[in-house]
Amino acid sequence: MPRSIPSITVSRLVAYLRVLTDLELQQVDYVTSDELGAAAGVSAHQVRKDLVHAEAPGTRGRGYTVALLRRELSSLLGLTRPWNAAIIGMGRLGQALADYPYYGNSSFNVKTGFDIDPSKIGQRLTSLPVYAMDELPQRVKELELDIALLTVPVSAAQSAANSLVEAGLRGILNFTPTVLAVPPQVRVEQVDFVAGLKRLAFYLQPDVAPASG
Amino acid sequence: MPRSIPSITVSRLVAYLRVLTDLELQQVDYVTSDELGAAAGVSAHQVRKDLVHAEAPGTRGRGYTVALLRRELSSLLGLTRPWNAAIIGMGRLGQALADYPYYGNSSFNVKTGFDIDPSKIGQRLTSLPVYAMDELPQRVKELELDIALLTVPVSAAQSAANSLVEAGLRGILNFTPTVLAVPPQVRVEQVDFVAGLKRLAFYLQPDVAPASG
Repeated sequence: MPRSIPSITVSRLVAYLRVLTDLELQQVDYVTSDELGAAAGVSAHQVRKDLVHAEAPGTRGRGYTVALLRRELSSLLGLTRPWNAAIIGMGRLGQALADYPYYGNSSFNVKTGFDIDPSKIGQRLTSLPVYAMDELPQRVKELELDIALLTVPVSAAQSAANSLVEAGLRGILNFTPTVLAVPPQVRVEQVDFVAGLKRLAFYLQPDVAPASG
Repeated sequence: MPRSIPSITVSRLVAYLRVLTDLELQQVDYVTSDELGAAAGVSAHQVRKDLVHAEAPGTRGRGYTVALLRRELSSLLGLTRPWNAAIIGMGRLGQALADYPYYGNSSFNVKTGFDIDPSKIGQRLTSLPVYAMDELPQRVKELELDIALLTVPVSAAQSAANSLVEAGLRGILNFTPTVLAVPPQVRVEQVDFVAGLKRLAFYLQPDVAPASG
């Protein structure tokens, strides 16, 4: 039976994984649900509830074993296998993402870029080759692409998404402020940095106390 | 007495505001907590609990008045006044953000860029002027800057953050994968698009059912 976890829970699992990765780098061996919750901005109760999805090896008193829990979460989230990605739209943002040096030893291999601008196709604007959007179906197969990072202008976003779906891609990281219509087997995640600015604005108000959590 | 709302709640309020803005554009007049929750990926119960922070004009049966609730949330989040921002680090990502056309009629005015590279300072790489980092304290006052979008390399992130704090900026939108140490009166919000890739990866696994929520 297929597993299913609500997306809001998946977001928190990703946040815990980030904290655990930092702790492991700092050579911390154990972490309690209180500590993990504080670092991820949620309650200890929520942490324990979420970690039911992982086979979390907790020890009463000492908490979770950082290395084991990190491995469990990586595996649960599908990060123990590689995923191949392409950047759709090689404007400034696409180019910045192409040479972004912090995918780290993560599971994501950004393999190529696509654009419709003839002056960009075939050029080495970054370390990635740039193909024409027409070539998408063929290249998706050839390069075994799984994920698209969508950085086209808003006016082109839905039609580009349609092309991605037709070419068989199943994951879209959407950098455009557009609500994309896609079939249910395709997953869209939004990158919305203006939301980050809005969260900041709240805390900058003179009558708001510094952050809790 | 200063107000205080946990950051996880602020995140949800920002998500509701986004949904309400879309609904208003679609000329929808009313929204129930069920509908708002479904669109934001949380429960109706959570929506009602969070909206206690807004003076939310709900009507039994019809739900909330979209336009009123949107205005209440904008005001609560500090988005009814302008905030001035600067981009710190005018590399490819900084340049992409400088010309990002979708701040919209939001409250954010990106006024200028800063860099340490003499070949960038004073140049018109984008529509923004680029000043030297040395000029930061003076320009923060002159341009009444509130917020920094931090896009420097990881190796320079903490020292840049220190300069921002010294210059009196109180909000940092951190695009670098670095945990910044800042004093309590300074707020940092993280933009982590690799987290978006990780959320995608979960749903791309063959034994995972398409998204719930």
